[in-house]
Amino acid sequence: MQQRVPAPRQAKLCADLPSTVPFVGPEAQERARAAQFRARIGANESVFGPSPKAIAAMRQAAADCWMYCDPENHDLKVAIAAHHGVKPENVLVGEGIDGMFGYSVRLFIDPGEVVATSRGAYPTFNFHVTGYGGRLVFADYVNDREDPQSLLALAAAQKARMIYFANPDNPMASWWSASDVQAFIDRLPADTVLCLDEAYGDFAPEGVLPRLDANNPQVLRFRTFSKAYGMAGARIGYILGEPHVIKSFDKIRNHFGVTRIAQAGALAAIADQAYLREVVGKVAVAKARIDEIAASNGLEALPSAANFVAIDCRRDGAFAKRVLSGLIARGVFVRMPGVAPLDRCIRVSAGTPADLDIFAAALPEALAEAGRA
Amino acid sequence: MQQRVPAPRQAKLCADLPSTVPFVGPEAQERARAAQFRARIGANESVFGPSPKAIAAMRQAAADCWMYCDPENHDLKVAIAAHHGVKPENVLVGEGIDGMFGYSVRLFIDPGEVVATSRGAYPTFNFHVTGYGGRLVFADYVNDREDPQSLLALAAAQKARMIYFANPDNPMASWWSASDVQAFIDRLPADTVLCLDEAYGDFAPEGVLPRLDANNPQVLRFRTFSKAYGMAGARIGYILGEPHVIKSFDKIRNHFGVTRIAQAGALAAIADQAYLREVVGKVAVAKARIDEIAASNGLEALPSAANFVAIDCRRDGAFAKRVLSGLIARGVFVRMPGVAPLDRCIRVSAGTPADLDIFAAALPEALAEAGRA
Repeated sequence: MQQRVPAPRQAKLCADLPSTVPFVGPEAQERARAAQFRARIGANESVFGPSPKAIAAMRQAAADCWMYCDPENHDLKVAIAAHHGVKPENVLVGEGIDGMFGYSVRLFIDPGEVVATSRGAYPTFNFHVTGYGGRLVFADYVNDREDPQSLLALAAAQKARMIYFANPDNPMASWWSASDVQAFIDRLPADTVLCLDEAYGDFAPEGVLPRLDANNPQVLRFRTFSKAYGMAGARIGYILGEPHVIKSFDKIRNHFGVTRIAQAGALAAIADQAYLREVVGKVAVAKARIDEIAASNGLEALPSAANFVAIDCRRDGAFAKRVLSGLIARGVFVRMPGVAPLDRCIRVSAGTPADLDIFAAALPEALAEAGRA
Repeated sequence: MQQRVPAPRQAKLCADLPSTVPFVGPEAQERARAAQFRARIGANESVFGPSPKAIAAMRQAAADCWMYCDPENHDLKVAIAAHHGVKPENVLVGEGIDGMFGYSVRLFIDPGEVVATSRGAYPTFNFHVTGYGGRLVFADYVNDREDPQSLLALAAAQKARMIYFANPDNPMASWWSASDVQAFIDRLPADTVLCLDEAYGDFAPEGVLPRLDANNPQVLRFRTFSKAYGMAGARIGYILGEPHVIKSFDKIRNHFGVTRIAQAGALAAIADQAYLREVVGKVAVAKARIDEIAASNGLEALPSAANFVAIDCRRDGAFAKRVLSGLIARGVFVRMPGVAPLDRCIRVSAGTPADLDIFAAALPEALAEAGRA
């Protein structure tokens, strides 16, 4: 790759960024293995797929995709607002939560300002903070949960202008009650934004998601069609927030960035709550099966309010890593937390019965292999 | 919209940004009119739609969209590279040219640095420059073309670190020869990036697109599936560039930002070059028809190397604006350039024969009305 002229200088914030990426996709692993995965239960996708009505709407929209999307996302915002009992002005529709994390950091964080998160929490959020020159500070998980007390203390001590908190959590699937989260919100330092990631909120039992306060400019609640609605590859999600704050995203968002197909699919998906309940039921069955598989292998499945289960392999991160590698070698795509002590676990998404049969067959072999190493 | 607590302070670059948006979508205009447009020929979309093979691939992918996309866009990059005779390392796939303009400005431009473009050229590029704190400077169009000499002189005088240049141009559909563009490239100041927008390149006659130099780190060539490939609403495009520069986008891009459906559609679309040629042929027929309609109304259609025609209304911008309003009132969605003297024109996209029948019927009425005002 010979360069005849020097490459133009990059912006200061970008020049020194690491070129690491938040996640390697399963497709890259498949290319490296030269074989397809037999069970794809590593990215907390919904193996149960989108609502048939959403699929039909997307198929219909495929032929219409010569048209740009409605950049105001009008119809979808109206439907989302009605679903949550808020106004369309409380809703920002965007190209998935990842993209909207980028917008949020860009909107609020100046280079050098502090953003607080938990060590081991969602790495793509950190990718955006680092990318915009924010300075990340980390609280620890306490008993496998992101810890509001620790985050508030850290934010106060470090003058954090943004806090990331997921409820239910990823990668541990743990959760706090709505009243605990509300107490967290009520104690936010002035001038601090809470990015409340509720991507897995649709799976949570009653009493986990706090009541919506559509007038609090300090809270951005992130929701998605990628998880329970089964549309991860369509890239569409939304933020619920205070209208002035929501409006200010117009200053920077990619107005035509959502696809017309995703708009159509999401509109049909949110209208089909019966299907959503069906998926949540199937996920519960799958999680119970994962619990059984873990127990029958002498492992401990952690309680889960999401669509995946963290399985405690009861040794250190190196051991869990060997178990993970053994599963991947057997065609089972799973992932694991990146930092201790969370990394004693592997993370298994709710699969179909067939997926979990494959997992159940592979796990004892992977464990035996990991124990011998 | 009462706020009980003050909104957190926004980042310096964002706090003062105007909340104007680059384009109002036709759907917003339809809501304001409380009526659908009868002819949608204002956004340079391809009314001929995507290849039937691309539609079939997207329909197939709709059911698979529970999976995130391949974040490396591997298969599509291989296909694009083969199509252009370059390596996959020369290709960045992203969520449409608009999104990739944002990445490009972010990657190269520090706040306060200068970016040169032409007065009246693509506004969404400017939206991103302003959004990242760049300082825009403007050359004038010369004879309805963006002018390389003027842009080079301006860039040298103002020490611009980035230049925007579209070939063929939007909104005038004018163009330069490949050798003129190559001379422009060869004279770029050191440390300056050329954003060469070739969104309409698939419509250009032979001899307009310069030969690809895959080793020049100063040139980013923007291509899209939104125009000739008919997939505007699927949000997928690509940059052809030098491998190190292309790789550096990994530092900031939204890795999972392209939809799985768009990846599948684009892969099928690029494989169907016969369909692409058919569309280009239909566009040529439509442009000839637009020329006729203009001439029969005493107007002048400017020569076009794109999929739209700028029609010179032969008076000032206020007159052209009235013509535009008259067309919109008659259900014909068209747009017009934003600045003088380009704004003596209206801009009409290549429509179906039915679209152009509606335009042909509405134009004399709109002209008469505009003349009476």
